[in-house]
Amino acid sequence: MTNKLGGSLKKIGVLTSGGDSPGMNAAIRAVVRTGLYHGLEVFGIMRGYQGMYEDDIFSMDSRSVANIIQRGGTILKTARCKEFFEPEGRKRAFENLKKRGIEGLVIIGGDGSFRGAQKFSNEYDIPCIGVPGTIDRDMAGTEVTIGFDTAVNTAVQAIDKIRDTMDAHDRVFIVEVMGRDAGYIALHSGIATGAENILIPETKTDIEAIIHGLTEKEKRQKLVNLIVVAEGEEFGGADEVAKVVRQRLPKADVRVTVLGHIQRGGSPTCEDRLVASHMGYYAVESLLLGRKNVMVGVINNKIHYTPLDKAVKEKHKIGQEWMKIVKILAS
Amino acid sequence: MTNKLGGSLKKIGVLTSGGDSPGMNAAIRAVVRTGLYHGLEVFGIMRGYQGMYEDDIFSMDSRSVANIIQRGGTILKTARCKEFFEPEGRKRAFENLKKRGIEGLVIIGGDGSFRGAQKFSNEYDIPCIGVPGTIDRDMAGTEVTIGFDTAVNTAVQAIDKIRDTMDAHDRVFIVEVMGRDAGYIALHSGIATGAENILIPETKTDIEAIIHGLTEKEKRQKLVNLIVVAEGEEFGGADEVAKVVRQRLPKADVRVTVLGHIQRGGSPTCEDRLVASHMGYYAVESLLLGRKNVMVGVINNKIHYTPLDKAVKEKHKIGQEWMKIVKILAS
Amino acid sequence: MTNKLGGSLKKIGVLTSGGDSPGMNAAIRAVVRTGLYHGLEVFGIMRGYQGMYEDDIFSMDSRSVANIIQRGGTILKTARCKEFFEPEGRKRAFENLKKRGIEGLVIIGGDGSFRGAQKFSNEYDIPCIGVPGTIDRDMAGTEVTIGFDTAVNTAVQAIDKIRDTMDAHDRVFIVEVMGRDAGYIALHSGIATGAENILIPETKTDIEAIIHGLTEKEKRQKLVNLIVVAEGEEFGGADEVAKVVRQRLPKADVRVTVLGHIQRGGSPTCEDRLVASHMGYYAVESLLLGRKNVMVGVINNKIHYTPLDKAVKEKHKIGQEWMKIVKILAS
Amino acid sequence: MTNKLGGSLKKIGVLTSGGDSPGMNAAIRAVVRTGLYHGLEVFGIMRGYQGMYEDDIFSMDSRSVANIIQRGGTILKTARCKEFFEPEGRKRAFENLKKRGIEGLVIIGGDGSFRGAQKFSNEYDIPCIGVPGTIDRDMAGTEVTIGFDTAVNTAVQAIDKIRDTMDAHDRVFIVEVMGRDAGYIALHSGIATGAENILIPETKTDIEAIIHGLTEKEKRQKLVNLIVVAEGEEFGGADEVAKVVRQRLPKADVRVTVLGHIQRGGSPTCEDRLVASHMGYYAVESLLLGRKNVMVGVINNKIHYTPLDKAVKEKHKIGQEWMKIVKILAS
Repeated sequence: MTNKLGGSLKKIGVLTSGGDSPGMNAAIRAVVRTGLYHGLEVFGIMRGYQGMYEDDIFSMDSRSVANIIQRGGTILKTARCKEFFEPEGRKRAFENLKKRGIEGLVIIGGDGSFRGAQKFSNEYDIPCIGVPGTIDRDMAGTEVTIGFDTAVNTAVQAIDKIRDTMDAHDRVFIVEVMGRDAGYIALHSGIATGAENILIPETKTDIEAIIHGLTEKEKRQKLVNLIVVAEGEEFGGADEVAKVVRQRLPKADVRVTVLGHIQRGGSPTCEDRLVASHMGYYAVESLLLGRKNVMVGVINNKIHYTPLDKAVKEKHKIGQEWMKIVKILAS
Repeated sequence: MTNKLGGSLKKIGVLTSGGDSPGMNAAIRAVVRTGLYHGLEVFGIMRGYQGMYEDDIFSMDSRSVANIIQRGGTILKTARCKEFFEPEGRKRAFENLKKRGIEGLVIIGGDGSFRGAQKFSNEYDIPCIGVPGTIDRDMAGTEVTIGFDTAVNTAVQAIDKIRDTMDAHDRVFIVEVMGRDAGYIALHSGIATGAENILIPETKTDIEAIIHGLTEKEKRQKLVNLIVVAEGEEFGGADEVAKVVRQRLPKADVRVTVLGHIQRGGSPTCEDRLVASHMGYYAVESLLLGRKNVMVGVINNKIHYTPLDKAVKEKHKIGQEWMKIVKILAS
Repeated sequence: MTNKLGGSLKKIGVLTSGGDSPGMNAAIRAVVRTGLYHGLEVFGIMRGYQGMYEDDIFSMDSRSVANIIQRGGTILKTARCKEFFEPEGRKRAFENLKKRGIEGLVIIGGDGSFRGAQKFSNEYDIPCIGVPGTIDRDMAGTEVTIGFDTAVNTAVQAIDKIRDTMDAHDRVFIVEVMGRDAGYIALHSGIATGAENILIPETKTDIEAIIHGLTEKEKRQKLVNLIVVAEGEEFGGADEVAKVVRQRLPKADVRVTVLGHIQRGGSPTCEDRLVASHMGYYAVESLLLGRKNVMVGVINNKIHYTPLDKAVKEKHKIGQEWMKIVKILAS
Repeated sequence: MTNKLGGSLKKIGVLTSGGDSPGMNAAIRAVVRTGLYHGLEVFGIMRGYQGMYEDDIFSMDSRSVANIIQRGGTILKTARCKEFFEPEGRKRAFENLKKRGIEGLVIIGGDGSFRGAQKFSNEYDIPCIGVPGTIDRDMAGTEVTIGFDTAVNTAVQAIDKIRDTMDAHDRVFIVEVMGRDAGYIALHSGIATGAENILIPETKTDIEAIIHGLTEKEKRQKLVNLIVVAEGEEFGGADEVAKVVRQRLPKADVRVTVLGHIQRGGSPTCEDRLVASHMGYYAVESLLLGRKNVMVGVINNKIHYTPLDKAVKEKHKIGQEWMKIVKILAS
């Protein structure tokens, strides 16, 4: 028997891997239901490659993904699997797939997960389709990643609250958001909350300009100022920036908040649910059409496929226009 | 004295017009601060063309837009102005601008507001730049409008709550969202909440297919079903659809919720704040660069200018791919 | 073997019945885990008395209530069961309990559910403990009910959004909240959103005073006004009130929003989760201590037991002080 | 002319002092409007005692408190004023009141602010009424304080998000919430999020029991565990607790999040808006009735007055019942 699209693929597996991001459940749901619609059997693999290695794999039906589209986290859980880095580990993982007849995989995760998939596929000739699930949005081959929109809105809502108390006290607040290599969350949430300064890994920080601005405000007795900082900016995060500020403006009332893991959880936004649904859908279609080892991305609102080994973390250039707008709008 | 960009423009006005949408305040803020940055004097005009007609106009400084980026509604208020439809009314409005030396306008609103601006500009040669503020997103010349992302997330969060009680009772819920001419809010919020059926103005509703689906579920004693309806769909909204469903399935427990005006308010999402900030910024740049009577839009993530008289409501085609995904994912 | 508290009770059942309310899942969780802690076997009964009648009953362990404390709705679902009104139906229901050895019941629901429990207990001598789960808060024997705090906050957040657009347009908004017999949701949400008028079942509506107030505002060209209406107020809800207002002030821009079922769903507030956890805990303790046919309530922050047949809907008096505060604070 | 209640008081001042809390704006609004209703002139004093000392005082009308009931922070701002600790400072502050004829004060703040008020009143015989605005809820003379309910719900929503990612990864999370002297926020938010362990200043922490529990879970390969910690617990906060856990369970994946200042801001909950509205109302009534130097509190849902010098921070006893419930429900 062939599936609806005419291919011979009959069984596929789906897993989430690496850091979790809101919307992963919506992607799982889309993979499962699109697979079932096309007559496939779909297996859930628990805790990423770990479950593949440990044979923690189960058959999913439509109900197993009911009522999860709105939930943060991932029902398949995620982990980093040391064993999968070793040939032995991948061999065992493959055997667990083989004994069930699983002939294709959808991997929801980040670039590290895709590298693993590429290697695995090279060795065992099993087609792998990547779906970019990461809050950082710094992937080549796609302009959107599952979880970014939710993470950035979580950050915005948190910073809005901080602004209430900042304004009540006339304080300097330094808020650290996620982004070890990429400043998107900082940039977007900073502009959206009217931050006076935004420090990101992509650009050199002109600390003297910042200190100068703060000093001017202090002279005018009106030192209220919001600085949004990506964890990967050059000083090393909010605490380090605060040290500098406190040293240079010893009388300033400087407070630090590190938003941390709240940015990874929560019910996904509409956008993230849609993106995840689309990507999950096209991931299964890709397998059925015989695509191999590509990541499903979106560029200019259109589905775009990138070879998995090109779907790496990419430090996009942040246009100078952006930084100029930050400066003008916060002034 | 010339302004920073080298032109001779010295004074501009900004107004919000038509139905309000979340993010309008962020756009006002961007217009005011970008104007001030370039050495312009910026006037706020209250209640759209009404304030222009009634001379309710005031000079704005940076502080007058402090702490508004996160607020729903519009600090300039909005209204529909009958007098502005008449030549007499526009004459009086122009005189109110002239006596202050206002030589350019930024109009934040929808297609009706832009038509008024075009007419006004034709008569009095005052450059007008449109910024699309409407939750419906159905404008030619732009893929995004200020307020859509917030409205659709508000709808999603409301429908998530309804799903809780729907699932607890095994009921049929018909939820009406805004969209008199466009089904975007219904389509996006429906997919994002896993709606079984989505009824929109852009496509013909196959009511028999819906009834058939419900009847099948009723036979299996499992009649829980979410139908999301745009107010402008062919039956005339949720109450009308409910009549049909109740008639055909008299034993079903059918409930209706009309989300209504909650979709217009609320703190804007990150996306709407960013879009509004960008568009407001480019609206002022446009005036300074001598552009006339265009709307600032975004297509493929790039700023795009459309003549105001082309920036009309446009019924986009909803791809069949979308409706297929709805069907597959909700099954 | 006896359980930890020394009694001979070994198996209990838990069900949710009547209209659902946010926090019911937290109560189920508390009942199950408290029961397990005391060495009991705890059975979940699906869809209230319907599942008892149809023998849809299953044994629950600690994991079956994991990760539900934050969820709206009820994992046990709820329904109204006609058969349970008949002696035959109750007989069958009892037999389903008996064959499993279930000797005590926790009923999470409203006064109708408690009357059913009382009758059942009278006939079959099975102790029933009631836990008040209703968003309306109008029960004798308790000052708090599970779901009220969430419902009222949902209403407040929705009305906040409506206020944004109301203020932008200078409109009269009439917002209907739930409360067929009780005005608590209207009263609390109305005060909290600064409503000018609040119409509730407990007090006579002075419509002439309202019309007078609106007329005065209209004269001053400043007719923006929020009226919050309980569905059970004397005119019959928001649409009926709107008819009167439109008739008397034909030029006013009057809009109606009926919040509807969004008030029943959503993640419960901290308060509702706590109240549910406490009540569920004390419900099981009560069974173990040999209490019979009482509702667990809270009065003056202390647990309070009321015989089930006294735990009826009660129209509390709303102090005149309250209505005076509404008037003063909205002026 | 006498005011409506018949006294001779004509002018009062209102200020917010100490740490800000959500709902302070609702209290200011209630004070202003209740004062105006009774024919008083009401002055806003900026930045607490600082504005009193620096003569930053302005007359307020009804519109100056329009549309603030839903906002976090305080429009009157807050600060700590060194000068007010000195007799000279208080003298100057008094003169600023005297020259305007201000004869009564409403102080919205915490115990430190009340001590200042008491001293000031002793010296200058100006009646002061305290309104408890603090998220910590640890005041003698009242069971509720403005801001607690909002802070605890903010904490709950943040921890819910953290739980998503905790569950996805099977991690140990240690979340620090506010509460230097009091564990209410930790206790309530911990129970509401199903925390396995809650560490608060009021009780001795049995760290060995916690380590034992974690070790047991680790043995079962299922080490997912949420620990909620008040900043003032005996180990010194989340980072310190994490050190101990990491030392004792070196293989565990332990993460720390310090929620920080997000707990101080945000739109107040319905409860906090109501409490603030009531307390503000009764504060003005108290002044009119000739009460002096009391704090308006609520005990058993009734207004309760406590002399300002008795309205101190109070470490309430946390019943053993509570800690037992934590243990049972999280198991």
